[in-house]
Amino acid sequence: MGQGEGHPTTPALWDSWGSNLYPPPPNNTTKLNIYLYIFLGSAMKATMAFYSAYLLCLVLSVVCVVLVVHWNASFRGGFAWDHQAKQFNWHPVLMVVGLVVLYGNAAVVYRIPLTWGQNKKPWKLLHAGLLLLSLLFAVLGLCAVFDFHNANNTPNLYSLHSWVGIVTTILFATQWAAGFGAFLLPCSPVALRVLVKPAHVWMGATILVLSVVSCISGINEKLFFVLKKTTNETRPYAELPPEAVLANSLGVVIVAFALVVLKILANQTWQRPEPRSEEGEYRPLRSDDS
Amino acid sequence: MGQGEGHPTTPALWDSWGSNLYPPPPNNTTKLNIYLYIFLGSAMKATMAFYSAYLLCLVLSVVCVVLVVHWNASFRGGFAWDHQAKQFNWHPVLMVVGLVVLYGNAAVVYRIPLTWGQNKKPWKLLHAGLLLLSLLFAVLGLCAVFDFHNANNTPNLYSLHSWVGIVTTILFATQWAAGFGAFLLPCSPVALRVLVKPAHVWMGATILVLSVVSCISGINEKLFFVLKKTTNETRPYAELPPEAVLANSLGVVIVAFALVVLKILANQTWQRPEPRSEEGEYRPLRSDDS
Repeated sequence: MGQGEGHPTTPALWDSWGSNLYPPPPNNTTKLNIYLYIFLGSAMKATMAFYSAYLLCLVLSVVCVVLVVHWNASFRGGFAWDHQAKQFNWHPVLMVVGLVVLYGNAAVVYRIPLTWGQNKKPWKLLHAGLLLLSLLFAVLGLCAVFDFHNANNTPNLYSLHSWVGIVTTILFATQWAAGFGAFLLPCSPVALRVLVKPAHVWMGATILVLSVVSCISGINEKLFFVLKKTTNETRPYAELPPEAVLANSLGVVIVAFALVVLKILANQTWQRPEPRSEEGEYRPLRSDDS
Repeated sequence: MGQGEGHPTTPALWDSWGSNLYPPPPNNTTKLNIYLYIFLGSAMKATMAFYSAYLLCLVLSVVCVVLVVHWNASFRGGFAWDHQAKQFNWHPVLMVVGLVVLYGNAAVVYRIPLTWGQNKKPWKLLHAGLLLLSLLFAVLGLCAVFDFHNANNTPNLYSLHSWVGIVTTILFATQWAAGFGAFLLPCSPVALRVLVKPAHVWMGATILVLSVVSCISGINEKLFFVLKKTTNETRPYAELPPEAVLANSLGVVIVAFALVVLKILANQTWQRPEPRSEEGEYRPLRSDDS
C-alpha cells in the first residue's frame, strides 16, 4: 500500500461497518488502522451513550430520595418508631429507596464500562450486596406499616396496593435467594448459571416494574388518605396543594427512573463483554457467567 | 453412507445443535435428515411454547374483560351516559379493555407463527386497526370521566393516577401517529422504518407498563372511594367484601396479562422471521420492515 492512496478494501470496509462514524478516516488509512478506528470509535460512541443514560439514572436516583424524604419529613411530620403516623412515614421512604433506587442501581452495575476490564467477582458482590440492602430496606418498610396497622387495629393486606406490594417483595426475596445460590455459591455448576441467567434477568426487570406499580398506587392512596376536605391542616388533594404536587412529582420521577433502568438493561450494546472465564482460564461451556 | 450405520458427523451435529431435542434421531439418520429433524424439531418446540404463552394471553384477556364488566355492572350499578356514577363506570371498563386488553393483543399479532408464511400487510393493518380501536376506547374512557367530573364540579387531572394515565394516553396517541407515518404510509422510506423500529417497539412496551401502572392505581383509588365505613351499602375495603376481592383480582390479572405480553414481545425466538422484502422482491437495505 503506497502513501497517499487508500487500501482497496477501505471503502467497502467503511461502508459495511464504519459509516455511522464521523468524521471518516483519511484516504490513506491502512486496513488495520481502519479496523482500530471503527472499533474504538464505535466503542466510544456506545460508552458515551451509556454514561449519558447512567448519569440520568444517578440524577433521578438522587431526586427520588430527596423528594420522598422531603415529603415525609416536611409535610408528614417526620419519622419515629412510635406506632403512630410518624412510624408509617418510614414506609414510603424505605420502599422507594429500597425497592426502586437501590434496586435499580444494583441492576445496572454490570453495564458500567469502567468495570469491564476488571475481575467480575467484586462487582457480583456489589450487585448482591446492594440488592441485599435493598431487600432489607423493603422488609423494614413492611415492618413499619404492619406494626403501625397492628397498633391501630387496621387490617393488613386488603388493598390492591398491598397485594401487589407483598407479591413484589416475596418475588424479590425469592429472586435474591435463587441468585445467591446460582451465581455466588462456588459449588454452583456453570451449566446451572447458563440455565438460570435469562430467567434471573427477566425476573429482575419484572420485579422493578412491580415495584413501580406498588409505589405509584401507594403514593396515590396516601395522598387521598391525608389530603381531605375534612382535615383542616391541608387543602384537599383535588386542589393540588404543594404536598400533592411534590408527591405526584415523586411518582413521575420514580416512573422515569425505572424506564431509564429498564432501557439500560435492554440495550444489547451496553452489556458487559464476558471473558472466556472469570478467573482467566478457558471454560469449555459457553456462558455469560453472571 | 450405508444402511444401518450413522453418518460420521451425526454425533457432533447432534451435540452442537440438537441435544435440546427429544427423542434423539435414529443412529442411521443422514446428515440432511438430521438438519431437517433439528430444524423442524426446534421450530416445533418454539411454536408449541409460543402457543402456550399466547393461549395464556387470550385466557387472561377474557378474564380481564369479564372481571371489569362484572365489577361495574353488578357492583357499581351498571352503565349510562348521564353525568352520574353510572357514567363513571364506563371509565374503568373502557381503559382496561382499550389500554390493556386490545393494546396487548395488538402488540403480539406479529408473533403468531400462523401468520408468518403470509404477506405482512394485512397483519400490519390488523395491528394498526386494533391499536386504533384501543386508542378510541381510551379516549372514550377519558371522555367518560372528564364529563362526569365537569358535571359534578370535580377538578380534573389532580391525582397521580390521572397524571400517569393522561401521559400514557398522549404517548399512545403519538406512538400510533408516528407508527402510521413510518410503517403504513407507502411513501415512508425503508431507511426511516429501520431507524424508527427499535424506538417503536421500546415505546410500545413502555406504554403497556404505564397502562398497567394507571389501571392498578385507578382500581385501588376507586375501591377506597366507594368502599367506606360511612356508606351503608357495602362493608369497607379493609374488611375485603366480595367487591374488593373481585376488583383486587382484576388488578392481579391485569398485571399477569401485561407480563405475559411483555414476555412474548421480549422472546427473540418468537419474532417473525422477515422475508427479503414484503412484496417478495429483493430489498438492498437490511431491514425488519415493520
